[in-house]
Amino acid sequence: MTDPTLTATALRADGRRPDALRPVRLTRHYTMHAEGSVLVEFGNTKVLCTASVEEKVPPHQRGSGEGWVTAEYGMLPRATHSRSSREAAKGKQSGRTQEIQRLIGRSLRAVFDLKALGERTLTLDCDVLQADGGTRTAAITGAFVAAQDAVHQLLAEGKITSSPLLHPVAAISVGIVGGVPVLDLDYFEDSGCDTDMNVVMTGAGHYVEVQGTAEGLPFSRAEMNQLLLLAEKGIAELIVLQQAALAGADVI
Amino acid sequence: MTDPTLTATALRADGRRPDALRPVRLTRHYTMHAEGSVLVEFGNTKVLCTASVEEKVPPHQRGSGEGWVTAEYGMLPRATHSRSSREAAKGKQSGRTQEIQRLIGRSLRAVFDLKALGERTLTLDCDVLQADGGTRTAAITGAFVAAQDAVHQLLAEGKITSSPLLHPVAAISVGIVGGVPVLDLDYFEDSGCDTDMNVVMTGAGHYVEVQGTAEGLPFSRAEMNQLLLLAEKGIAELIVLQQAALAGADVI
Amino acid sequence: MTDPTLTATALRADGRRPDALRPVRLTRHYTMHAEGSVLVEFGNTKVLCTASVEEKVPPHQRGSGEGWVTAEYGMLPRATHSRSSREAAKGKQSGRTQEIQRLIGRSLRAVFDLKALGERTLTLDCDVLQADGGTRTAAITGAFVAAQDAVHQLLAEGKITSSPLLHPVAAISVGIVGGVPVLDLDYFEDSGCDTDMNVVMTGAGHYVEVQGTAEGLPFSRAEMNQLLLLAEKGIAELIVLQQAALAGADVI
Amino acid sequence: MTDPTLTATALRADGRRPDALRPVRLTRHYTMHAEGSVLVEFGNTKVLCTASVEEKVPPHQRGSGEGWVTAEYGMLPRATHSRSSREAAKGKQSGRTQEIQRLIGRSLRAVFDLKALGERTLTLDCDVLQADGGTRTAAITGAFVAAQDAVHQLLAEGKITSSPLLHPVAAISVGIVGGVPVLDLDYFEDSGCDTDMNVVMTGAGHYVEVQGTAEGLPFSRAEMNQLLLLAEKGIAELIVLQQAALAGADVI
Amino acid sequence: MTDPTLTATALRADGRRPDALRPVRLTRHYTMHAEGSVLVEFGNTKVLCTASVEEKVPPHQRGSGEGWVTAEYGMLPRATHSRSSREAAKGKQSGRTQEIQRLIGRSLRAVFDLKALGERTLTLDCDVLQADGGTRTAAITGAFVAAQDAVHQLLAEGKITSSPLLHPVAAISVGIVGGVPVLDLDYFEDSGCDTDMNVVMTGAGHYVEVQGTAEGLPFSRAEMNQLLLLAEKGIAELIVLQQAALAGADVI
Amino acid sequence: MTDPTLTATALRADGRRPDALRPVRLTRHYTMHAEGSVLVEFGNTKVLCTASVEEKVPPHQRGSGEGWVTAEYGMLPRATHSRSSREAAKGKQSGRTQEIQRLIGRSLRAVFDLKALGERTLTLDCDVLQADGGTRTAAITGAFVAAQDAVHQLLAEGKITSSPLLHPVAAISVGIVGGVPVLDLDYFEDSGCDTDMNVVMTGAGHYVEVQGTAEGLPFSRAEMNQLLLLAEKGIAELIVLQQAALAGADVI
Repeated sequence: MTDPTLTATALRADGRRPDALRPVRLTRHYTMHAEGSVLVEFGNTKVLCTASVEEKVPPHQRGSGEGWVTAEYGMLPRATHSRSSREAAKGKQSGRTQEIQRLIGRSLRAVFDLKALGERTLTLDCDVLQADGGTRTAAITGAFVAAQDAVHQLLAEGKITSSPLLHPVAAISVGIVGGVPVLDLDYFEDSGCDTDMNVVMTGAGHYVEVQGTAEGLPFSRAEMNQLLLLAEKGIAELIVLQQAALAGADVI
Repeated sequence: MTDPTLTATALRADGRRPDALRPVRLTRHYTMHAEGSVLVEFGNTKVLCTASVEEKVPPHQRGSGEGWVTAEYGMLPRATHSRSSREAAKGKQSGRTQEIQRLIGRSLRAVFDLKALGERTLTLDCDVLQADGGTRTAAITGAFVAAQDAVHQLLAEGKITSSPLLHPVAAISVGIVGGVPVLDLDYFEDSGCDTDMNVVMTGAGHYVEVQGTAEGLPFSRAEMNQLLLLAEKGIAELIVLQQAALAGADVI
Repeated sequence: MTDPTLTATALRADGRRPDALRPVRLTRHYTMHAEGSVLVEFGNTKVLCTASVEEKVPPHQRGSGEGWVTAEYGMLPRATHSRSSREAAKGKQSGRTQEIQRLIGRSLRAVFDLKALGERTLTLDCDVLQADGGTRTAAITGAFVAAQDAVHQLLAEGKITSSPLLHPVAAISVGIVGGVPVLDLDYFEDSGCDTDMNVVMTGAGHYVEVQGTAEGLPFSRAEMNQLLLLAEKGIAELIVLQQAALAGADVI
Repeated sequence: MTDPTLTATALRADGRRPDALRPVRLTRHYTMHAEGSVLVEFGNTKVLCTASVEEKVPPHQRGSGEGWVTAEYGMLPRATHSRSSREAAKGKQSGRTQEIQRLIGRSLRAVFDLKALGERTLTLDCDVLQADGGTRTAAITGAFVAAQDAVHQLLAEGKITSSPLLHPVAAISVGIVGGVPVLDLDYFEDSGCDTDMNVVMTGAGHYVEVQGTAEGLPFSRAEMNQLLLLAEKGIAELIVLQQAALAGADVI
Repeated sequence: MTDPTLTATALRADGRRPDALRPVRLTRHYTMHAEGSVLVEFGNTKVLCTASVEEKVPPHQRGSGEGWVTAEYGMLPRATHSRSSREAAKGKQSGRTQEIQRLIGRSLRAVFDLKALGERTLTLDCDVLQADGGTRTAAITGAFVAAQDAVHQLLAEGKITSSPLLHPVAAISVGIVGGVPVLDLDYFEDSGCDTDMNVVMTGAGHYVEVQGTAEGLPFSRAEMNQLLLLAEKGIAELIVLQQAALAGADVI
Repeated sequence: MTDPTLTATALRADGRRPDALRPVRLTRHYTMHAEGSVLVEFGNTKVLCTASVEEKVPPHQRGSGEGWVTAEYGMLPRATHSRSSREAAKGKQSGRTQEIQRLIGRSLRAVFDLKALGERTLTLDCDVLQADGGTRTAAITGAFVAAQDAVHQLLAEGKITSSPLLHPVAAISVGIVGGVPVLDLDYFEDSGCDTDMNVVMTGAGHYVEVQGTAEGLPFSRAEMNQLLLLAEKGIAELIVLQQAALAGADVI
């Protein structure tokens, strides 16, 4: 890896250092009906994450005394550079959509004690209003904050007596662009990179998900190690931002 | 009709006079990719309207020299008080969704000269971020502004030489609540009203669509006349707000 | 409005006066299984309306003590001039179909006392055997007669003790063709008209639904008033024909 | 087999002899748009068969110089004793529907010279208005008459110069009810029979399709022979009735 | 019929006599999870038949004290000469698939005493791994053996005390190829034959299903008799092979 | 990590060492129609992988001079311990199915030079006949062998002159079971493990995909390193087995 500080200007269109996140903003209470509602922005990527509590569970959990946490993902048709067709009109969700919503669901379940949640369902809807790369990692990062708000409301209402949320969780993408490992790829970087990795970690620094894909050349163990280090750095920063947002402080 | 000024406080939860619109806000350039992108707010109802230009037309217009204008409508699952299921996941759009998007499409086509648009398609995507009654009328009102922005871009790029947009168009709901005709019903009022009417009019004061439904008691000709007068007043105000938004002025 | 009596011959292909209905025929007991079964003909438009009683209600009415009235609409593939594809084979109902069946359902519910119906469902199936314009208005007009027959049977069987049908209901289309307001448009007139309005009224002369659409030029308040007057006249005639059919008299 | 003449009264609710058809009626020109349109009645079973000509062929026949003949089958929801759900609303055709429409299509193709038809498609839509057993055999019998009318029209228009219809074709059901072979089962007989067989034959007395099913006890070769004899008799009668209908004579 | 022994070599590509089956192999316990699992081979046609027992019944049998037997059929995309599209990906089963699985289900139900089965469901999944004609007849023949194995397991577990399987059942295709009736058609013969008949019989020599189709010329009664005789011979041989397989003997 | 040699017997039900693959078998030419057809077995997991060549490409590659490589995945209903419903009958592929087939497609494309393939499509159908954990990794490992056979055939036919297959590719699962990292998990191990990782690597030891999921406790960097080492060992062994199979040697 060449020295990132030297090549930053040339490397990234927005002048970011290779190891820098885009400006991240977490706006709570973005809409009024949901138990948790967060607009998360990673640069120009904007995802509305709502957390909805329903007093019922899917069949596989009925009578178990445990709750369920699940996620759905969508993209507005013109969230993207050219219009993509509406999945509701086509009559089915794409494989990509299903893959992403399954990832979000697993990531959030990994930090939930379903027993402590009780027999109710928390649904995290992550809808992309504007896309510029990293929508799934922004969605996980925002969904955690929305989930936390919903949990606080359950506690305040006395429906649960201790929080079922065991750890913070956040996610970031890393990749190798032009031979250089970079953090938090935008759409342009993502399209041109050789390797793309999405990493989901807890506040305690443990992995929940690692999904690395060679889009061009297969990657080496050394490259993977560099990418994991970068991701660890980015996620640590995101977790600070989540806590700040939850503490009510301004976040830029 | 009793004197609305006397009963206003009792009548409407937000203290509005029977003939008053909710605060309306039209935010242009709300997202960055679409040729037109407007967040329209009628009180707590918030709809994102994007206008997308594509250089192709559906089969029925191919080779005609004419363009096409169409609309799609969606509601985020937690735009509503309790979560509704995601149409993309269910695999089909509800009858209500189809009815609304057909209405939006017809309303905008009514003010477009398809010949002057040339063989291209303008798609208006209206996605409800937060619902509190009147989403279809907000959508039409916002979609006009998004369409106007898209037309300006086509003119600026020299793709067309004169505007295919013949008139402004806007829409409002009116209804009879507790015996009193009121303008711009919110969700609570809409749920309890006897008659609900959606009116779409041009800037020249002509009707594009009138859809009145007796939800409780059938209504008389006199009541319909009162409702049409109210709607005319509301639409005239909305058209002023649209022009102000397009002129770049602040709108509240 | 020019004098319709003078222009009638030139105006309408079948020589009708602008304010004249097509020949209307209501044939009861057209098929043998349904509780009500009526073939309704508005000129060449022929719709089979059956009313089916089922001793169950949809989930939203269970335990409410109230019944439900709903409608479904279909068109045989070759009811139309050129063959249209079969919705069952395509795997979904068009937006037009859903819009029409929702309209029929609302129109009939508007004249039903669901409490008096008891916890049962009345389904009105309106299937177009031959189409020549005005299928939705013929369907509503015929469905009322089928519903009345089904109600009589429930009364005769002692399942209910008083009729849940509060008023007759009928529907007609009106439109402006070549500048002249006309009643009960056939397919050819409907295709060429500037404004098309479907009106649903009760026997007491109150509105249940008004749906006006500018297909060409937006229409003025004065034009709407003319159309509403024409519709009122047509519906009054239809209600007489419905009563005659129910009284067992011949109807032409 | 006991003597059918002795047991007829007891055997069949309508007093028919075991080897008698129900009253058959073939009404041509039943609807006005289709190239062929026939209402076929086998007793209380009523099926509307339309033949539609389209100047295109499915992909597998394109450029072959040959045409195509196909069929679709449907049942109005209240054609049956209790209401069945609408296939268009459910979003798919049942296995039974597909099985029947494939049978109708094969039966008609068996008597068509696709080369002589030219590159066009003849679609036979068979929609059951009222069902009382034997809908598929009535449909085939009526579809032949509709197809013949459509062929006559193609000849009259000079689109083809010789008829592609090689033979008449008709169909009937036979079955063993209470140990006695009977012809043309109504719904009640069909529900209670041990063996049900549908036979499709040409005017020349050759088989196009034989579909026998043991609904209760498996059947012997001797029983099958009896059933085939009965079917042969019934089809010969149906072919006479088809010719009479096509000759314009009254048919009862 | 000409003497089949003389024309055999010329007639059939594999040198079989007209009245000869292809080599048949029934491999039990082919997969490990199912209660019955049989790979059936008719020459190059290979179908995996599994019998699954579930302790529930479909709604129409609930509380009846009776069980249910049903079948599903599928074809791997490259079981055929050129790849056919995957039905799961297309989102629906073809009419052919549904027709075949309904035939398999009826054939097996015909030899089951549903009362003796008790309120449980036996599902026969027949999946074609390699197709060379006769997949449906191989499926029925193999499904019987799988069903028998499942029944033995239910007996061994004491869930039932007497076998609900009343008779063996097997199936074979017969057809007229180049004027000669032949048994057990392979794909090449099937594509070119004039008449194709599938026959399902019990071990007692009674018919369960007979489905004959004229693919080219309609067929005579004499030809049908020849075909039925051939089928009878083939099925008698298949039933011997089934019994041998169930007795554990090697089968070729 | 405790010494795996000591705990092996207790740890794994089949007595395998933690770092041992299950017996792997690759049977080429398993079915006869496909250009490549391989039955791959990882212990009791059995997947049929076929490679089909079609002389066409999807729209996004048309005219590009490049080919396409894609995959579809399915599971026979009774491949699993209890019967799962058939996706073709349900009318859609599950999210899991789509996720897996996208993974297989990406993995194979990563080792293909699409330019050298020419404008044709290679479809890898991976159908699970029997499932016992690791179906996706077995599928990728078998699909490579099937793809290689299809490429050999294209070369033999002179359709391409050099191989578009750049590297071997294989896949294996690793996981942490009871605190011990183990290779190639069977279903029982997979169900109970805390962390599950699927690794896809080339013959040159580079990563194509890494997908790690914490099913129970999030995992540390140290654990991930152990898992990656284990996977590297397993994949090296699989690649030897693939080469042996392709060389025609017996493989156990």
